[in-house]
Amino acid sequence: MGGKTNMSDFGKILELNLTTWEQREFPVSEENVKKYLGGRGFNSRLLFNYTKGKEDPLSSHNPLIFGAGLLTGTPAPCSSRYTVSAKSPLTGGIGDGNSGGFFGPEMRFAGYSHIVFLGRSKDPVYVYIEDDKVEIRNAKHLWGLDTWETTARIQEELGDNNAQVACIGQAGENLVKVSCIINNLTRAIGRSGMGAVMGSKNLKAVVVRGSGGTLVKNRAGAFGILDEMKELTLTDQSFVLFRKNGTPGLVDIYNSRGVFPVNNFQKSYLPDATSICAETFKEKFALKSKACYNCVIHCSHFYEVEGSHKEEGPEFESIGALGPRLGHSDYASILKANHLCNRFGLDTIGAGDAIGFAMECFEKGLLDDGQTCGLDLSWGNTDTEFELLRMMALREGLGDLLSQGSYHASRILGRGSEDLSMCVKGQALISADPRGLMGWGLGYAVANRGADHLRAHPVVEYCFTPEKAEEIWGTAKAVDRMATEGKGKLIKWCEDVRALADSLGICKFFTRTAYLLPEQLAKLIAPVTGLEFTADDLMLIGERINNLERSFNAREGFSRLQDTLPKRMQLEPIPEGPSKGMTIPLKSMLDEYYEARGWDVQTGMPSPEKLRQINL
Amino acid sequence: MGGKTNMSDFGKILELNLTTWEQREFPVSEENVKKYLGGRGFNSRLLFNYTKGKEDPLSSHNPLIFGAGLLTGTPAPCSSRYTVSAKSPLTGGIGDGNSGGFFGPEMRFAGYSHIVFLGRSKDPVYVYIEDDKVEIRNAKHLWGLDTWETTARIQEELGDNNAQVACIGQAGENLVKVSCIINNLTRAIGRSGMGAVMGSKNLKAVVVRGSGGTLVKNRAGAFGILDEMKELTLTDQSFVLFRKNGTPGLVDIYNSRGVFPVNNFQKSYLPDATSICAETFKEKFALKSKACYNCVIHCSHFYEVEGSHKEEGPEFESIGALGPRLGHSDYASILKANHLCNRFGLDTIGAGDAIGFAMECFEKGLLDDGQTCGLDLSWGNTDTEFELLRMMALREGLGDLLSQGSYHASRILGRGSEDLSMCVKGQALISADPRGLMGWGLGYAVANRGADHLRAHPVVEYCFTPEKAEEIWGTAKAVDRMATEGKGKLIKWCEDVRALADSLGICKFFTRTAYLLPEQLAKLIAPVTGLEFTADDLMLIGERINNLERSFNAREGFSRLQDTLPKRMQLEPIPEGPSKGMTIPLKSMLDEYYEARGWDVQTGMPSPEKLRQINL
Repeated sequence: MGGKTNMSDFGKILELNLTTWEQREFPVSEENVKKYLGGRGFNSRLLFNYTKGKEDPLSSHNPLIFGAGLLTGTPAPCSSRYTVSAKSPLTGGIGDGNSGGFFGPEMRFAGYSHIVFLGRSKDPVYVYIEDDKVEIRNAKHLWGLDTWETTARIQEELGDNNAQVACIGQAGENLVKVSCIINNLTRAIGRSGMGAVMGSKNLKAVVVRGSGGTLVKNRAGAFGILDEMKELTLTDQSFVLFRKNGTPGLVDIYNSRGVFPVNNFQKSYLPDATSICAETFKEKFALKSKACYNCVIHCSHFYEVEGSHKEEGPEFESIGALGPRLGHSDYASILKANHLCNRFGLDTIGAGDAIGFAMECFEKGLLDDGQTCGLDLSWGNTDTEFELLRMMALREGLGDLLSQGSYHASRILGRGSEDLSMCVKGQALISADPRGLMGWGLGYAVANRGADHLRAHPVVEYCFTPEKAEEIWGTAKAVDRMATEGKGKLIKWCEDVRALADSLGICKFFTRTAYLLPEQLAKLIAPVTGLEFTADDLMLIGERINNLERSFNAREGFSRLQDTLPKRMQLEPIPEGPSKGMTIPLKSMLDEYYEARGWDVQTGMPSPEKLRQINL
Repeated sequence: MGGKTNMSDFGKILELNLTTWEQREFPVSEENVKKYLGGRGFNSRLLFNYTKGKEDPLSSHNPLIFGAGLLTGTPAPCSSRYTVSAKSPLTGGIGDGNSGGFFGPEMRFAGYSHIVFLGRSKDPVYVYIEDDKVEIRNAKHLWGLDTWETTARIQEELGDNNAQVACIGQAGENLVKVSCIINNLTRAIGRSGMGAVMGSKNLKAVVVRGSGGTLVKNRAGAFGILDEMKELTLTDQSFVLFRKNGTPGLVDIYNSRGVFPVNNFQKSYLPDATSICAETFKEKFALKSKACYNCVIHCSHFYEVEGSHKEEGPEFESIGALGPRLGHSDYASILKANHLCNRFGLDTIGAGDAIGFAMECFEKGLLDDGQTCGLDLSWGNTDTEFELLRMMALREGLGDLLSQGSYHASRILGRGSEDLSMCVKGQALISADPRGLMGWGLGYAVANRGADHLRAHPVVEYCFTPEKAEEIWGTAKAVDRMATEGKGKLIKWCEDVRALADSLGICKFFTRTAYLLPEQLAKLIAPVTGLEFTADDLMLIGERINNLERSFNAREGFSRLQDTLPKRMQLEPIPEGPSKGMTIPLKSMLDEYYEARGWDVQTGMPSPEKLRQINL
């Protein structure tokens, strides 16, 4: 395809030093593909190699690495994803975010699988890449603009509305720890504070334009997958669910189980969720469906809030974090808050969590008049919510404190507020209450990038029967949300499989049920790359990636201690609803997890033998 | 007695501004005695009045208040105690320490019940008080000396070995948050970081010499108490226990219940405690008994460690904090560490806790090579222990971090180390594991000066039968260490009674069992002061003091959230020994406590109605 000179089998690595403007290129070797695939996996390898440990995440010593997946931009279905990795200013450990849209494929079309930004520019710049051409351009005129303004201005200057722009808003510029990188206006590299790392480099945007394609070894085989999809798209539960309602449909699913957090996890159930259900969204706001590159699901929506704005979205996690966790179910306000986050470049989960934290501090009398800056932080005050988002992005007053995320804010505020921060390793919990979801809870606790549902994403209750669960994990209870048994093995397995999706650049909604098993993933890889992997080969790659990432954290001083959940999850039972009375007991699940991983149960870290065994 | 002109009925208040050298005096009014007695109670009132809230504890805006009790220095038995109060740099709330020896009585002999130090001296000074003469003297030549050197130098200069000196060591000078004030070489105002507040004022020592006495309204009545004591000193369990072994005898008592913390509370039982029991101490080190002013118990010992030092001590809490909590039972090393703490002016509990925290961090791999400063922080390494005490006092390397106390150190270190800090409100737990002592645990959680056994000191299991317990607190289980029932009412009652001892200046070992009840305390007060109190009058005073101190904390932004215990206490069962399997469930006990206090159960704070009711 394309016939560009810059195309190598697995793309190239671009190393760009923003201090010296030095620029180097290397091909991605087959050896590295066989060990890490690409995307998140190879990003983590690069990050580990470019650092020694103990770097200040916001210093010039922290590399910022963009990585498209091995299958990103290829004919493989849902192959839109790319990962941005760096040491996280939020957790102090390995950090990354993953986003869809059209930016990742464009990187591949330009010939690059990975871009490593080193150093720090003296003045604001953006990087423009057009196939072989790599330019560091002045961005002084863009500094201070939000992500939408920035994208529009760049595309206008280039005279190219299809130039793919990944940029930061004011939040990233101001080193807000819960800031993100935005591409395609609403697609976010959301978690781990990657926006702040980009801001610390004075890098306002990365713009790519490629005229090449991606190598496809066996085109007929690659497109053959789509035949298989015809039936699946109509029958697979995940496809049907997400095609119909997108992630907003998860509101009812989690709320019906009583694990939908309200008022900063003080409750986890809305007796009446009508105003916030997917049907309401579709009826009142949605205009049409939207899809990322090469997507067969099209889970997203283009919507309008009359008199306010139009955009694509929203995601379930944004709904939870910006609505019920802050004490309201006002859909228009949720969408407005979501829009503000996108434009300022704030992570909706981290920002919502910080505001929920502040509102509970206010309720409990922990903020004095000076600290509240005159704001009424009562639950459900959406004016305060909007204002705090602005103040966080611009680091004004209380917003400056909250810009650190609730974990760091609570360490500054003290006075017992530490117990009101709903974080693991400094990263905010998502809106699925672990007290009623044992497997998810363990997943949040052990995830190397901090409270995270997507490292393990254990939705296996939907796709595996108890019999199948017993076969894989030795107990049918592994898929019982209320049981702790088998969860260690389950989460180990899920983490290894999910690392594959992130490294292939395939959407997790595609690999959620129908293409969950490694043997299915192998079938996607072979026709595109010509590389044949067995299921065992792939599971070993997944295991290697997770061990590598844990080794990164070990070097930073992490241990079993950080594999935990907020006190509330372990000590305060859910007060009402279908999961009433539940808390999450972690110890036995953690023990089982480390054993399943072959790690030291005391330290929660890989042994040298283990690392040798998986060739790390 | 004495016939000095400076004697008023209840002594005077001296206000001394160290910035301006202004000096004022006021008599203690009968009205204030009737509301707060003196000592801790009236100190707290003064502190509340001299502050507005939100002061930086180490700024010139924090007053430092020395207060002798209403009966301190009088013929009342065990009337040696004085209290030093200030806003605590360790907790950010109300702070105080209480000490025996001979300093408190000497304050009274000089005519002063309370001394309020305001402002901050530009250069190091000490204050010399001799009856009416109050002088601020240069202390540049004393700065950098330890407490023993300081005391010796001052007494030498004065040519008066009976001048009473309360001074700080290097720790207080260096604003170490776990520093104390030392009088009589080994008697400590230990908790809450009062040494750092004194250091922040550049006040090296307070020296008093009085030639007066204390007013005694009915001398025959006052001495009559001693007749009653003859029998008691031979029979009362507390007197017998402490006279025989002193507090070192508590080692066996706590260990036999499996609540004697080992390795930073990872365990709470020594299968063999021979080397650390009171008999070993007495056989190998003790030379003779020692007593404070007017004491009928003489719980203390003068001891010698051959080739090292001689001094008075040690207390049980120092033994626990400097021995088993750090992984060893080497008595000579404990005594040496205790001696170092006394000379540097470190709180043995806070310093030991900080080292135990560091050792567990080391065990868990949370300290890197740079942070350990080349020290081997393995459990039981006493050389490291000694070195860290020095480094804390001088704020060198790792000692600088630990000088903040484990709570603040963990907030700086992060990485999950927060869960290894055994503190409440920033103040370290004592060596009685709350997991096996429900009442004590609740007491630690709610104490206004942070984890503290002496606010409630619920030793009532020793002196009340189940029947008596049912009569006072409505349930016999109130005195069952393993039951949560009745503990809220119990701790409220104990706190109110204990506040009386602290405000009268009477030792808690005297009011531990035989003179525990308010009607007994009333009998001590009447002959000395001529004031007749009913038991109800006194209980109301105790309640008022506790409400006042909680109101101080409320002004600083405290709430129910801080009334908690470390995660370990609530989630990790004691792994072995007689209390194996126990954790402490706080919620129901807290609810009962706030109800018993008539406080808001949600906020844990007094309502305006409550404050009016008790005339605050």
